[in-house]
Amino acid sequence: MSIEAIDFFYLSMPVVTDAGDGSQDALVVRVVADGIVGWGECEASPLTSIAAYVAPMSHGACKPVRDVVLGKPIEEPADIARLAADIEMECMDLLQAAHTFSGIEMALWDVLGRKRGEPVWRLLGYKKAHAKLPYASQLFGDTPEETLAGCRSAREKGFRAVKCGWGPFGRGGLAADRDHLAAAREGIGADGTLLIDAGQIFREDVDAAALRLAALDEFGATWFEEPFYGGAYASYAGLAGKQAKVKLAGGEASHNVHMARQLIDYGKVSYIQIDCGRIGGIGPAKAVADYAVERGVTYVNHTFTSHLALCASIQPYAGLKDHLICEYPFAPKSVAWDMSETHLTPDANGEVNVPHAPGLGITMSTAGLKRYLVETEISVKGKVLYRTPAL
Amino acid sequence: MSIEAIDFFYLSMPVVTDAGDGSQDALVVRVVADGIVGWGECEASPLTSIAAYVAPMSHGACKPVRDVVLGKPIEEPADIARLAADIEMECMDLLQAAHTFSGIEMALWDVLGRKRGEPVWRLLGYKKAHAKLPYASQLFGDTPEETLAGCRSAREKGFRAVKCGWGPFGRGGLAADRDHLAAAREGIGADGTLLIDAGQIFREDVDAAALRLAALDEFGATWFEEPFYGGAYASYAGLAGKQAKVKLAGGEASHNVHMARQLIDYGKVSYIQIDCGRIGGIGPAKAVADYAVERGVTYVNHTFTSHLALCASIQPYAGLKDHLICEYPFAPKSVAWDMSETHLTPDANGEVNVPHAPGLGITMSTAGLKRYLVETEISVKGKVLYRTPAL
Repeated sequence: MSIEAIDFFYLSMPVVTDAGDGSQDALVVRVVADGIVGWGECEASPLTSIAAYVAPMSHGACKPVRDVVLGKPIEEPADIARLAADIEMECMDLLQAAHTFSGIEMALWDVLGRKRGEPVWRLLGYKKAHAKLPYASQLFGDTPEETLAGCRSAREKGFRAVKCGWGPFGRGGLAADRDHLAAAREGIGADGTLLIDAGQIFREDVDAAALRLAALDEFGATWFEEPFYGGAYASYAGLAGKQAKVKLAGGEASHNVHMARQLIDYGKVSYIQIDCGRIGGIGPAKAVADYAVERGVTYVNHTFTSHLALCASIQPYAGLKDHLICEYPFAPKSVAWDMSETHLTPDANGEVNVPHAPGLGITMSTAGLKRYLVETEISVKGKVLYRTPAL
Repeated sequence: MSIEAIDFFYLSMPVVTDAGDGSQDALVVRVVADGIVGWGECEASPLTSIAAYVAPMSHGACKPVRDVVLGKPIEEPADIARLAADIEMECMDLLQAAHTFSGIEMALWDVLGRKRGEPVWRLLGYKKAHAKLPYASQLFGDTPEETLAGCRSAREKGFRAVKCGWGPFGRGGLAADRDHLAAAREGIGADGTLLIDAGQIFREDVDAAALRLAALDEFGATWFEEPFYGGAYASYAGLAGKQAKVKLAGGEASHNVHMARQLIDYGKVSYIQIDCGRIGGIGPAKAVADYAVERGVTYVNHTFTSHLALCASIQPYAGLKDHLICEYPFAPKSVAWDMSETHLTPDANGEVNVPHAPGLGITMSTAGLKRYLVETEISVKGKVLYRTPAL
């Protein structure tokens, strides 16, 4: 079979604020091959990723994603890997291409799984899918009281792990950060798993980040995520070398396998966090998971949007029993929830199970998608290159 | 003064082919502050980079470039650096933002230089601008005879250095590659500088690339550029460790300072090649030049487009006397030539001198720009976010 159609749907809340909440809009991809429909989702900036799909070619190594993928054969996983390699060469100079292709790649796995009646994690070579411990991913409150309330709410909803990130952390003094950490620990409870995300606030400043280690250890944080710019490997390695119990996590910005490997090899992180909507989809994410296993690093998904993205993000490490922690969008905006009819809700044990249904195992909601659809049009030389397609 | 206006102009040849020739289209930026007009150029995929400028915000760390830059104060070089830091944080999840901002950043330096009556290289701290040895950058011919003709033509036009890249190199057998190298050496002459660009053809395969080292040494190549994916540092380091006279070059894909540093630190390249139209402009490129000097690595510009981009690309290392080699678009398409009234033509000695005029020292051609202008329109929710502005 060949890839017959690829359609992008830009969804958004009516109002998008500048909070660090990635669930306010979405770019969903529908792929059709041999009449089978698969779905995927690209992370970040829907309009820009659509442009990378339809842009006129600049030269042989700067083609639009469409020219590399549409109409190509898709019979088995190796075909998806070949397309990914073609993207790397033929879209070499189109920076946004990795994000655009990510959603398409997910949808191709969904198509193949549906065609074969197999869940994607089985196509990836896993015999069994293990339950994951979801952490409620949320922003720090503006005050420690708000942070406490957020973490307590997560615990009351059955979450045994919580991640607090961004917001005021690292922007005020040490004492303020310590108050937030104390509040987060109190909220999730003494036996809960506490994860902290600094949102790159320390840029490259190892000393400033190191000043927070004592409080992170005092309140038993499991990991300290993205203290620095994603590419500041020397800073990561410098902080990893300090005496602390808390481990470093990072990797969400990786837009190819190399970047994730580098953060492991040179940045010395203990947790590698991969967003399938950015790294080029599920295949490269699985390659990172394999690499992490070989090096004693723990793989974690990065997901802040829909349950389609969540389900895709678990596939690459579904079969890794010891890689337990899973990012779970705790309080997504309604666009992220409504776009699918099915969701991955935690079981009675508070754990998340990836579907055993064919493909990604998520049923999309046409009504939900329509409700948030953003009409978009791009034309060049008077010719319409993109217009929001019909659902 | 503040940044009053930023306008993007998408230019293109009437027909764009899939040759590896980056001069077939262009994205030019015009910035106005306090009535002073500055110009810059973004590398690669004009439509996608425009979209990254106007895209609706996705969240606090995924803003369009416009929201971070337009209306902001611009009085001195520190203001440009501050904007670059803001872009890194506020456009963190917008991959294409680095390419979009690159052209704006160049134009801001042009504005500041014009305002102060100083060339940009002096604003960067250089006391003197040294002449550079331009190499004629061209593609390998389809046959060794074509490669010979191309290199001979460069020599006849006064070039003492030539770079051959892409085309059939690495795609056929060893003997074919050797024939092309022999032809290139014959064409540029025994005393000429010969540079070879593999265009990432060996992906991560150190052994395949290493098989070419003997012929590269036999024909006296100075550098072997991008044998691998830009991020495959371990492959670069592996090849750098082989016994060969030829040195490794790379770095053109760097879209931030970290990536360039990493290729030096982990990839062990001897020449770091920076495209100011991708790395975020002239400021980050200067930071790479400083870093290279400290580590005994030679800085080289990467430029395959206009003389505006060429002039911007020389600024970061204009004052580095020993960093002599300079990429020079040898046979650009007419769009790249016609957009400016002034050009950096080699002097009687065959060397290129960066202008002493204020700013970047390039005078743009309104007629030339108009000739290649591509009418483009982007609308979201019925509102026009971008329409080709007036020149």
